[in-house]
Amino acid sequence: MTEKYLALSSKDLPKRLSKVSAITDEIGSNYSDWRVNEVGDGNLNLVFIVEGTKGTLVIKQALPYVRIVGDSWPLTLDRAFFEYNALIRQEKRDQGVAPSVFHFDRKQALIAMECLDDHEILRGMLIEGKKVEGLANVIGKHCARLAFKGSDLHMETKNKKEDVCLFQKNVELMAITESLVFTDPYFEAEMNNHTEELSSVIKTLRDDVIMKSRAQNMLRKFTSNAETMCHGDLHSGSIMCTENKVRVIDPEFAFYGPMGFDLGMNIANYLMAYFSQPAHRKNPSETIDYQTWILQIIDGTVEAFEEEFRNLWKTERSGILYPKCLFEDQGHTSDHALQSLLNSIWEDVVTVCGIEMHRRCLSLAHNADFESIEDFSLRAKLEARNLFMGRELILNFESIKTVKELSTLAKKFNTQDIL
Amino acid sequence: MTEKYLALSSKDLPKRLSKVSAITDEIGSNYSDWRVNEVGDGNLNLVFIVEGTKGTLVIKQALPYVRIVGDSWPLTLDRAFFEYNALIRQEKRDQGVAPSVFHFDRKQALIAMECLDDHEILRGMLIEGKKVEGLANVIGKHCARLAFKGSDLHMETKNKKEDVCLFQKNVELMAITESLVFTDPYFEAEMNNHTEELSSVIKTLRDDVIMKSRAQNMLRKFTSNAETMCHGDLHSGSIMCTENKVRVIDPEFAFYGPMGFDLGMNIANYLMAYFSQPAHRKNPSETIDYQTWILQIIDGTVEAFEEEFRNLWKTERSGILYPKCLFEDQGHTSDHALQSLLNSIWEDVVTVCGIEMHRRCLSLAHNADFESIEDFSLRAKLEARNLFMGRELILNFESIKTVKELSTLAKKFNTQDIL
Repeated sequence: MTEKYLALSSKDLPKRLSKVSAITDEIGSNYSDWRVNEVGDGNLNLVFIVEGTKGTLVIKQALPYVRIVGDSWPLTLDRAFFEYNALIRQEKRDQGVAPSVFHFDRKQALIAMECLDDHEILRGMLIEGKKVEGLANVIGKHCARLAFKGSDLHMETKNKKEDVCLFQKNVELMAITESLVFTDPYFEAEMNNHTEELSSVIKTLRDDVIMKSRAQNMLRKFTSNAETMCHGDLHSGSIMCTENKVRVIDPEFAFYGPMGFDLGMNIANYLMAYFSQPAHRKNPSETIDYQTWILQIIDGTVEAFEEEFRNLWKTERSGILYPKCLFEDQGHTSDHALQSLLNSIWEDVVTVCGIEMHRRCLSLAHNADFESIEDFSLRAKLEARNLFMGRELILNFESIKTVKELSTLAKKFNTQDIL
Repeated sequence: MTEKYLALSSKDLPKRLSKVSAITDEIGSNYSDWRVNEVGDGNLNLVFIVEGTKGTLVIKQALPYVRIVGDSWPLTLDRAFFEYNALIRQEKRDQGVAPSVFHFDRKQALIAMECLDDHEILRGMLIEGKKVEGLANVIGKHCARLAFKGSDLHMETKNKKEDVCLFQKNVELMAITESLVFTDPYFEAEMNNHTEELSSVIKTLRDDVIMKSRAQNMLRKFTSNAETMCHGDLHSGSIMCTENKVRVIDPEFAFYGPMGFDLGMNIANYLMAYFSQPAHRKNPSETIDYQTWILQIIDGTVEAFEEEFRNLWKTERSGILYPKCLFEDQGHTSDHALQSLLNSIWEDVVTVCGIEMHRRCLSLAHNADFESIEDFSLRAKLEARNLFMGRELILNFESIKTVKELSTLAKKFNTQDIL
């Protein structure tokens, strides 16, 4: 396929991809037998599951516009290029977490990759109250490995700077995050929507000048602090699980940014699942049980992140930052440097977390945790808890020093009736 | 000149450049009349003053190695490309401060630019005790204009990200700063040298694990925080003055980095001039007079920086950061955001300042302020004051909140006899 870009259809897909040996090797070359199913439920792309005689794979193809909005919002096909580049880096930095890539066609904006159809999207599982063994460990470690191994802590600085250049070109997808996540929630942006009952809560947020300044300080870091390659969109819709397997998909928003970005967004989505539970569980006892589990996941994720980061600090610190010649080689500990770095990452985690909790209720692209609650008054009540906790995180990131304090805050807001 | 790179000599320069109309337009086309004088006294390049019948200009040509070290240290010719790109951006952002560029030849790594031979290098003037009218105002404003106008406060983010890519390729020159400035001072690096009498002082610095961690935190910002295009080497050897005119030269170390970097390096070099004065003035009263003037320059530079930054915040804030739709358009002040940004820039200024004060006495490329002091015992005594003040700045950047407090510290260390 070297022709001009053309969106695939379920019908023409087999013929069009039948000559790609990386694909036929996986699923068999008799393309008339392939069964094709379009399953894309995200906001941006076409996703086909293609089942052949030998196996199954996924074809993900970018569309030249934002699927959730339509062709009135054009969007670069090159996002497939950034997704591909992120996927192969994820695989190198933490093998077996991202889907394996079999084939990439830049012109067709198309990636052929491992099919995970025995997995479910985590967000749905959190709404249904399903538990996943090992979730915290896999995601915490994955965030740590991406953060550490894509940075000047580990990479040769020349290679790292080349990677910064590559991902700085993901301008259009970064621009979506820059506006939808960091700015739109805090003014009447055109594409915003929110549960009507939240108006007074939103006024409180938008009147909080100090909070808005801090959210914008974090935007400054998002857009400037090219510390490491982040997944860029690690919410619970980008995680797929079975009851004991955990995978991470959809890194098309990959960018060079703050080391705490992915972890912060991830925790925010767990907290939204947490606050939405009263609407999804049958009774208070089930709610309490599952909410307790979510807080354990948050706790375990941060613990796994820190443990793995400390481990990598000891074993993989080969970059220009905090070199051994300044510490260990002089008989000095580097523990202080490590702790000060972890503290600074944690501050970003807390701030990003608070902002993500806001944007999912206030700008475009809400999440199903709240959005599927049909009782608007209940939805607003639960969203308000979430919004006020988000504000607390943005305002007080310096004093919320541990994940335990974060959990304590969540429990406090979970019992507050703001609306 | 489209041939292969060849270093110019005074002898072959006229013939080789005689066909470049941008040059002959400036100085006249009768190249046999040109008078050529090689004046490069820096660490890296060839610099020729070329005088023709119509005028005079400077030809600066990169050498494929570091001039101060020799051809054992190869260095990319492309630094001329980055210098050229920085010069035209400086001119656009603050007209009339950098030399005008007449011609750039990437293959020959050569820039033809305005001659400033009625100016002197500021460092020499500071050693001689000469005063410059308007110094603080020009440099403070220049730092503010570069910082603001090269950032997401002002630029369209797409263009800013393209500029980040361009300057991220200045890998080799960034690598010099990364090692010589941030790391080499704090261990026995091969190319280091220092005044012998300083050994005990150096041991104290290198034993200070917290200080070293903080210096490395700043390296992390240097290498990752692509906030704006910095000049990258704004010491007093990169400033040329008459008694009332001020120009900035030599931006080949230009990079995208922290908004406070240039100002921090600049102040450090003033402080080194300050501490070295007792060796250069005839008597204590002259010393006190000139030291007082230097502190006024530091004070005035920071004041001009802040005033101009506040001014640009009001008039040129057209980027994605802290947009008016979140503040003024909602009837809210953005003063808190501005102040919090200025505070964060100031913390970087203080930290960079402390590190620059160290590296100029401890690693390669010392400065003449101290290096020209022939009495080693006096030199060491003055350098020790400088080194200990640098340490104080790195350790306590959070509590040194104003330039007045910085001056007070300088006066304190100026009377301390550590050696």
